Amino acid sequence: MSENLVAEIISVGTELLLGEIVDTNATFLSTRLRDLGITVYRKSTVGDNLERLVETIKNALTRSDIAILGGGLGPTDDDMTREAIAKYVGEEPYIDSKLYEELKEKFALRKRPMPANNAKQAWLIPSAVTLPNPIGTAPGWFVKTKDGKIIITLPGPPQEMTRMWIEEVEDKLPVSNKCLFHKIIHTIGLGESFLTEKIAKYTNLAVPGVGTYARGVGVDIRVAAVSNNIEEAKQIVEPVVKDICDILTGYVFGFDDDTIVSVIKKVLDEKKQSFCCIESLTGGMLASQITSCEGISSCFKGSITSYSNEIKELVGVKHETIETYGAVSKETAIEMAENAKKMLKTDWAISTTGVAGPAPLEGKRPGTAWIALVGPNVIATDFVDWPGSREMVRQRVCKTALNLIFKNI
Amino acid sequence: MSENLVAEIISVGTELLLGEIVDTNATFLSTRLRDLGITVYRKSTVGDNLERLVETIKNALTRSDIAILGGGLGPTDDDMTREAIAKYVGEEPYIDSKLYEELKEKFALRKRPMPANNAKQAWLIPSAVTLPNPIGTAPGWFVKTKDGKIIITLPGPPQEMTRMWIEEVEDKLPVSNKCLFHKIIHTIGLGESFLTEKIAKYTNLAVPGVGTYARGVGVDIRVAAVSNNIEEAKQIVEPVVKDICDILTGYVFGFDDDTIVSVIKKVLDEKKQSFCCIESLTGGMLASQITSCEGISSCFKGSITSYSNEIKELVGVKHETIETYGAVSKETAIEMAENAKKMLKTDWAISTTGVAGPAPLEGKRPGTAWIALVGPNVIATDFVDWPGSREMVRQRVCKTALNLIFKNI
Repeated sequence: MSENLVAEIISVGTELLLGEIVDTNATFLSTRLRDLGITVYRKSTVGDNLERLVETIKNALTRSDIAILGGGLGPTDDDMTREAIAKYVGEEPYIDSKLYEELKEKFALRKRPMPANNAKQAWLIPSAVTLPNPIGTAPGWFVKTKDGKIIITLPGPPQEMTRMWIEEVEDKLPVSNKCLFHKIIHTIGLGESFLTEKIAKYTNLAVPGVGTYARGVGVDIRVAAVSNNIEEAKQIVEPVVKDICDILTGYVFGFDDDTIVSVIKKVLDEKKQSFCCIESLTGGMLASQITSCEGISSCFKGSITSYSNEIKELVGVKHETIETYGAVSKETAIEMAENAKKMLKTDWAISTTGVAGPAPLEGKRPGTAWIALVGPNVIATDFVDWPGSREMVRQRVCKTALNLIFKNI
Repeated sequence: MSENLVAEIISVGTELLLGEIVDTNATFLSTRLRDLGITVYRKSTVGDNLERLVETIKNALTRSDIAILGGGLGPTDDDMTREAIAKYVGEEPYIDSKLYEELKEKFALRKRPMPANNAKQAWLIPSAVTLPNPIGTAPGWFVKTKDGKIIITLPGPPQEMTRMWIEEVEDKLPVSNKCLFHKIIHTIGLGESFLTEKIAKYTNLAVPGVGTYARGVGVDIRVAAVSNNIEEAKQIVEPVVKDICDILTGYVFGFDDDTIVSVIKKVLDEKKQSFCCIESLTGGMLASQITSCEGISSCFKGSITSYSNEIKELVGVKHETIETYGAVSKETAIEMAENAKKMLKTDWAISTTGVAGPAPLEGKRPGTAWIALVGPNVIATDFVDWPGSREMVRQRVCKTALNLIFKNI
C-alpha cells in the first residue's frame, strides 16, 4: 500500500443518473477521506448494470488503493453491488447463516414477514468481512483483494451510510503514517479573482496546499499540509495562515466552523448589545440567515419585513422621505433602521431596501439596493448595484448587510 | 448520431472531491436529460487536473454521444475545462474580441476593474460556439467534434448553469424523433409512502411512467409518456393525471411551474385580500419563502419576526397568555396572528411559534411548534411535533404554515 492512500468513490444507482436523488453521500465521504489524509482521485456514478459496475471497479483499482461503493445493497434484482464485487474478485457468494438469522430477527422485530428477496442481504464472499448495519437491513462488506487493494460497500440511505462509515469502516482503514492538518480562513467582501491575486504567492505552492472556494457569503481559503506528525503539519500551515490574514486584513471574519453570524453573535454578546433588522427586498431572508445560528436569541431580538410602503411608514419612516427620495434610497434605508431600532428597542438595527426584480421599481433596475446600519453613535450605509436573478440579488444584499454589521460593530 | 442519444456528465473541481460542495448541478442535468429522452450513462467528478480531464472526456466520448462538463470555467489557473477541451480536439484557443468586449462591459457595469486573469473567459476554439451567460462572467462552449460528438461546458454556479442549460443548450441538442410529454402534479400534506400506496395502480405502469419525488414543500408526481407526436403523448398522460388528482383530492395544489406560494397569491389576488406573517422559531424563513415569489407584493404586506417575548408583547400578545400557556402554545400562536393582522392591517395573518433546537424550551422538545392562521371569520391552527435538526424543524414548520394558508383561504 502506498504511503499516500488514494481512493475512488463509486455511487451506484440508476435513480442517481435520472436525477431523482442528490448525491450527498459522496460529499460526506469526500470530507471524511480528506480529513484522514486520503486523496480522492475521482467520483463516478453508474447505473444498476452488472457489466458497467465490474468495469468501474476494475478501472478504479487500476488507479487507486481503495474503491468505496455506495448503494446497490437492496434486496431487489436491480441491486447488484454484491454481484459485481464477487465477479470482480472471482468468488462465489454464499448465504452466511449468522447474517441470515440476524436479518430474520430484524424483520420479526418490525413484525413483518421477511420477503424471500432479502436473503441476498445475508450474502458473503470469502474475501469480505461484514460491516454491521444495526439501523437497516443491508450490512456492508469490507473486502481485501489478493493484490492488497480494498473494496468497501456501504448502504444507500444516508443515515445508515454515515453511521457505518464512522463506526465500522474508518478504524479498519490502513492508517497512513502521515498526518494532515488544515485550516479554513473565511473571508467576506472581496471577489475570488481579486483575493487570488492578492495571495498569488501561496496559491501555487505545493506545501502547504492553498485553495480558494467561493461560498454563499464570501470566499474560503483552505490551507493544508501533510507531514509525519500533526505538530509538524501545523507548523507548516500556521505561519501561512497568519500571513494570509495579514494580507487580507479587513476581509477575514473567522476560521473553520465560524460563520459570519456566529462571529457577529460573539462580538455582540461580549458587548452585551442587541440587534434587529428591517427588510424590504430581502423579505425575511436576512432574518432567516441570522436565526439559522444556534443561540442567536442572546443578541437578536427580531425583525420587520416592511414589504409595502405602508408598513415602512407604520414603523416610522416619514411619508415625505419616501416621496422625495424613493423607497429605494439611502435616506429611506437610514430611517428604516433608525425607527426599527427605536421600535424593537435594540442597540443596533440593519435595513435593506432595493429592487429584487424581475421588474424595475421607481426607475431603478433590479439589483439596486441600499443597506443601512444604525447603532451607538454609528450610521453606516452600503450600496449594491449588481444585476442578477431575483434570488441572486436577495442573497447578495444579505451578504452585504452581514458584512456591514461585521465591519462596524 | 444514434437515435437514442447517450450522454455523460462530468463535474469538474477539486472542491467537489474534497466534499466542500454538494453537486446539485449533476442532479439538475440528469432530470433535464431524462425529460429530453437522452440516457445518462455515467457521471464522473474529476479534480482540476489537465491530464485527468482530457482522459475523462476521451473515455466519455468513446462510450457516449455527448459530454457535458460543469465547472472549471473560472478565471484562475486551476480552472482548466477550456484547456482540456482544446487539447482533446487538438485546437489552439484564442481570445475572441467580441467576448472580450462583452466581458469588459460586464465589469464596467459593476464598476470594477477587470482582473487580467479574466481574459481566459473570452477564449474560444474553432469548433466551439459560445453559450452566452448574461448573469455571470463565464460563457459556455458548445463544441462539435470532427467525429460528430458534442461537448458542452457550463459554469459551476447553479443559477448560471441552469439558466444556460435551459436557454442556450436544449435547443441546440439533436432532437430525437420521439416526443415526450410530461406533467408534474404538486401535492402537499401527505407523506411519500402513503401517497404511493394510494396511487399504487399507476406507479408500476410502463406507459405512462409515473414517479414520485419528495420535495421541499411536499411530494411531486411526474406522469410522462413518449410517443410519435406530442398529441398522442398528451392523450396517454392526461387521463392518468386527472384520475390521480381525483384520488388525491385535497392534497394537490398545482401543476408544473406552480409553487404553493404562487397558488396562494393567485387565490388572494382574485379575492383582493392581503396577508402577513409573524414568526418566532422560523425567524424570517417563512417570509423569505413567501417573498421569493415574483410579484407577491400584490397581496403580501410584510412580516414580523418576534424572536423575543418582548417583541411578541410589543405586537400585542398579552403577557398573561405567555405566562399561562407558554410562548410555544396554541393560545400564543393565535394571539400573535390576531395582533399581527391588526397591526399590519391585512385580511389574513399566519403565525409560527416553537422550539427550533438544539436545546428544549419551556420543557418542550425541539421540533414542537404551533401555527395559527387568522382571517375573515377564520381561526385555524396546526401543531407540529417532529424532531430533527434545526434547519429541518424550521423547514417543516414553514411547509405546514403554507399548507394551512392554502387549505383555508
